[in-house]
Amino acid sequence: MKFAFLPSPWKESADHLRAAGHEMVDLSENPELLIFRGGPSDFPAELPDSVKVVQIGYAGVEQLLEAGILARHAERGVRFANAAGIYDDTVAEATLALLLAVLHRHKAVSREWNQEQLFGETEYLFDAKKLAIIGAGGIGKKLIEFAAPFGVEITAVNRSGRHVSGAERTVAMGDVEAMEVVWSESDCVVLLAPLTPETRHLVDATVLAKMRNNAVIVNVGRGALIDTKALTTALQDGAIAGAGLDVTDPEPLPADHPLWEMDNVVITPHTANIPRFMARRVGALAARNWELFAAGESMSTEVDVEAGY
Amino acid sequence: MKFAFLPSPWKESADHLRAAGHEMVDLSENPELLIFRGGPSDFPAELPDSVKVVQIGYAGVEQLLEAGILARHAERGVRFANAAGIYDDTVAEATLALLLAVLHRHKAVSREWNQEQLFGETEYLFDAKKLAIIGAGGIGKKLIEFAAPFGVEITAVNRSGRHVSGAERTVAMGDVEAMEVVWSESDCVVLLAPLTPETRHLVDATVLAKMRNNAVIVNVGRGALIDTKALTTALQDGAIAGAGLDVTDPEPLPADHPLWEMDNVVITPHTANIPRFMARRVGALAARNWELFAAGESMSTEVDVEAGY
Repeated sequence: MKFAFLPSPWKESADHLRAAGHEMVDLSENPELLIFRGGPSDFPAELPDSVKVVQIGYAGVEQLLEAGILARHAERGVRFANAAGIYDDTVAEATLALLLAVLHRHKAVSREWNQEQLFGETEYLFDAKKLAIIGAGGIGKKLIEFAAPFGVEITAVNRSGRHVSGAERTVAMGDVEAMEVVWSESDCVVLLAPLTPETRHLVDATVLAKMRNNAVIVNVGRGALIDTKALTTALQDGAIAGAGLDVTDPEPLPADHPLWEMDNVVITPHTANIPRFMARRVGALAARNWELFAAGESMSTEVDVEAGY
Repeated sequence: MKFAFLPSPWKESADHLRAAGHEMVDLSENPELLIFRGGPSDFPAELPDSVKVVQIGYAGVEQLLEAGILARHAERGVRFANAAGIYDDTVAEATLALLLAVLHRHKAVSREWNQEQLFGETEYLFDAKKLAIIGAGGIGKKLIEFAAPFGVEITAVNRSGRHVSGAERTVAMGDVEAMEVVWSESDCVVLLAPLTPETRHLVDATVLAKMRNNAVIVNVGRGALIDTKALTTALQDGAIAGAGLDVTDPEPLPADHPLWEMDNVVITPHTANIPRFMARRVGALAARNWELFAAGESMSTEVDVEAGY
């Protein structure tokens, strides 16, 4: 199989595919597979008819979708796969790190050795915490594994409500009554959902008002899952206890944004997943997906262009 | 049984003992048990002969030992128990939190959204890390549980070399050859050992020079397990990659100490264990130890005054 890799190849991925007998070529040399890891403006205006499959190098395809790129090519029979699942462990670990940093009040430590303050404010995950995982797919399952030894009570929230293994219960995101309980009873809320019209501002002023005063929220999904203004107000007012944010809205978060100042907000610059792990793994994923495509099957991470993820 | 609680009682502990039928009295009213949670200067100059057992409210008794308090009373038949084990989970969780915060470079995040820097510098615990736990007792075992889902290869180090369950291998601290391998091959080194003449400055310039450049060290044992000056130099020189410190030497760490400035050093002010968990649990421990003592048995956390822990 011939593949192109745009805007520029990840060496580790390309090496993996070449070792599996595939050939890297330019887009003009009739590749059958395109691996694409750029943004909408990097996407080629035209794809040669030879391209049957586009393997995206990341999981969240909403920008390509909004730019109309997926629909335009899908119409002509091109199939798309994203990279969901190949960084479950990186993101789940980054999530736990943020959650613990917020609970343990790392940012509140001062050079004045403010032990008494931390004695009062430190919370422990193991201490009978109720954890809700909103958007519990592959990353959520990995997070459930990481959190299991802490004995937390986990509520998984997904679209279908289909039971997620390891969770105490699974709630469908559309189940308004059950979601009331999730918002009002959770000590920790982790957002892992993709950004869709339904999930935009999922956590807004109304939801924040329902949450416990001791609740902490961790967002490693997409910034716009949260209404940033409402979150800032809730944190300022003590309506919730803290936040860990790997994604923000806007992103990057402006250097003068009040969230940077808060000692109960731990921020990382969208680094829960990092390219060197993606590079290491996308080659293997593309090879597997190509095999499935060639066998006439649905690819392991095939994008449902109509559903938008 | 009558017990006194000095310098002042923890309400939750006292309530627990009273609920079990015991009576809280002043030291002058001939208590049989003294629960003590202060420092050497708080310890009563004289104990009434009625006191058979002193239950210490924390684990590290080296200060009482150095002040000669344990020996003086042990000589007269008083037995001492410490509070080892009742905060395995708090300390193990705090250890994991520090370790992840260092690996994930939380302190290096800047308002300039330095994503590229973090892409390069973030490390993951799950990523084939070798973790050494120096002083692997109860806390170490809990840490092994917490770390298990990350698939790390764990080397436990203890005095006896007796196998620690869940560890890939256990090394005796006195095994010079095996310790060479521990220092030179571990990616993460966690110090949980008590402070004794043997463990003071266990991590000094010589040991730091053996460690990998990517190694991170987390100290939640006692500050003086590390030669602070040597650690500071090693971090400045890039001889090791980072440190998480819940304990320091001197402690508190002076506000102008260079360690505070380093973005690869995460410090908490000796708050891995916090009083409200100790208070919740020391009552039950004292009751259990009193029962064992009354039955003529060795107490569950009895201090070996000669050994010093």
